[in-house]
Amino acid sequence: MEKIKEIKLEELNPEEFISNEVEKITSKVGDDLAVNALSGGVDSSAVTMLVHKTLGNKLLTCFIDNGLMREGEPEYIVSLFKNLGVNVKLIDAKDKFFNALKDLTDPEEKREAITQTFYKDVFSQYVKETNAKYLFQGTNYTDVEETIAGVKRQHNILEQLGIDTEKEFGYIVIEPIIQLRKTGVRTIAKALGLPEEIYNRPPFPGPALAARIIDEVTPERIKIVKKATKIVEEELSNTKAFQYLAILHKDKVTGVRNNKRDFGLQIEVRCWESKDALIGTPTRVPYDILEKLAERITNEVLGVVSVTYNITKKPPSTIEAI
Amino acid sequence: MEKIKEIKLEELNPEEFISNEVEKITSKVGDDLAVNALSGGVDSSAVTMLVHKTLGNKLLTCFIDNGLMREGEPEYIVSLFKNLGVNVKLIDAKDKFFNALKDLTDPEEKREAITQTFYKDVFSQYVKETNAKYLFQGTNYTDVEETIAGVKRQHNILEQLGIDTEKEFGYIVIEPIIQLRKTGVRTIAKALGLPEEIYNRPPFPGPALAARIIDEVTPERIKIVKKATKIVEEELSNTKAFQYLAILHKDKVTGVRNNKRDFGLQIEVRCWESKDALIGTPTRVPYDILEKLAERITNEVLGVVSVTYNITKKPPSTIEAI
Repeated sequence: MEKIKEIKLEELNPEEFISNEVEKITSKVGDDLAVNALSGGVDSSAVTMLVHKTLGNKLLTCFIDNGLMREGEPEYIVSLFKNLGVNVKLIDAKDKFFNALKDLTDPEEKREAITQTFYKDVFSQYVKETNAKYLFQGTNYTDVEETIAGVKRQHNILEQLGIDTEKEFGYIVIEPIIQLRKTGVRTIAKALGLPEEIYNRPPFPGPALAARIIDEVTPERIKIVKKATKIVEEELSNTKAFQYLAILHKDKVTGVRNNKRDFGLQIEVRCWESKDALIGTPTRVPYDILEKLAERITNEVLGVVSVTYNITKKPPSTIEAI
Repeated sequence: MEKIKEIKLEELNPEEFISNEVEKITSKVGDDLAVNALSGGVDSSAVTMLVHKTLGNKLLTCFIDNGLMREGEPEYIVSLFKNLGVNVKLIDAKDKFFNALKDLTDPEEKREAITQTFYKDVFSQYVKETNAKYLFQGTNYTDVEETIAGVKRQHNILEQLGIDTEKEFGYIVIEPIIQLRKTGVRTIAKALGLPEEIYNRPPFPGPALAARIIDEVTPERIKIVKKATKIVEEELSNTKAFQYLAILHKDKVTGVRNNKRDFGLQIEVRCWESKDALIGTPTRVPYDILEKLAERITNEVLGVVSVTYNITKKPPSTIEAI
């Protein structure tokens, strides 16, 4: 494996980086077709804009709806990029992902099921149909480090997992932002003309909301975590924190409704101060906001009787729960 | 069932209450022997002092070590009362309780196993040996209300559960503080000459630390919650909150230790502002203290990678988790 060298934020000249990458991509891809999958996160958004700028309509971008995303997310991202002149194909693969996740409770097995469904099932099908030879991915430097360290397996790291994509899937992978950490990617995304809602977007995990469900991922449980996520994002966006999220636990706790015992669900809220997700500290969210959060979640999300707030730093915690 | 009338704090004259109760107890018990079980909580401590004051050595007090209590608790309480002139018999029943709790995961079944082991097995054995005819209990007014409302079954409510103790166990139950709420009991405890560490003690649940373990209660899991409880009590005693506690979850979450993924345990901390446990608000504990708490728990309690803080009011939460 080739050693990847980090480009530190202070060394990064966005215009120079972009024109270098445009040149590299042009010389590699030539007149061939390329594909990529957009998730709406800052990494894949930056890659989409960068490669679209270089290859124009020879880049075929898809958005795979795995059923595990935020409320309304797929339609929102596709229309946002349409307004920027980038046509994105929306692929509905919800059933495939839920079938693959059925009965799985182990975090590694869940991640693996999502990776396999994404690459082997849905995305490779799309690549085959397009006849594209090149595939662009939004892998960043933190993904590489964490995968090598064994902290967490990122779904978009293929080479590190020993997968020869050309042999196994029929395409060559290019990872233009692999030398950058998150803040570097944000700088590039801004320089590429993406709107602030994209370049300053809090990170969202690869396995999406499945990373925020302890135990089995089902359409019903996704619905619960989706509603809680929406409330958390509404109430915590003002904090300008690095990331904020809602986790659905499997454990049930005692609650009380209308003076009767109600054994119900618990949602854990996390909100992080961090630069690059490698280390993090819980945001000191004012208690007024925490109380409002708990009140909204227990009122608006059916079955939830308890809400907690994470107070552990990373390490020994991680940003996401799974 | 006889209707129980609350004595409100503003109507309570402690000296008058105590002399009335001394008179009532004397006329009921006469020259017979009485027993009670002391747990070290303010309720059973107040009852022990009140009845000891009335009956002297005719009250036989025991402390049943169920293995589910705080670190060093049984020895601490027995020696504290010895210094106040009250001899307390310490009964080691740890094995009996852990055997009864084996394989139980349902909260109601766990409570039931503890109640049954306490009354039918250990305590009734003690009562038989002493030949006592009267049994004193520290039931308070909130216990009665919550049991009637069906919110939670308190282990010391027997009449409400339809148990005729004279027929079933061979003794008559007397509940001298049943008309008082917690603050009333504290007032009486103080007037009886108990030290502040007892009369201002945060409440502790009937099933003790078993109420703070989600899923099965084993000696190993009790050890974990014991350590976490000790840290929480050390760090939060300055808050002067109504109650503070540590809950061991069953769910595991991803953590990171020495740069490696570590799928580990989660502890939930709760700290309550409340007058009588009927309603409660999470204490606005300063973040410095919360961070220190999380750091100590993840460093000092083996296997714990994540600590959360409860931000939900009661209702819809309850004070304890189980």
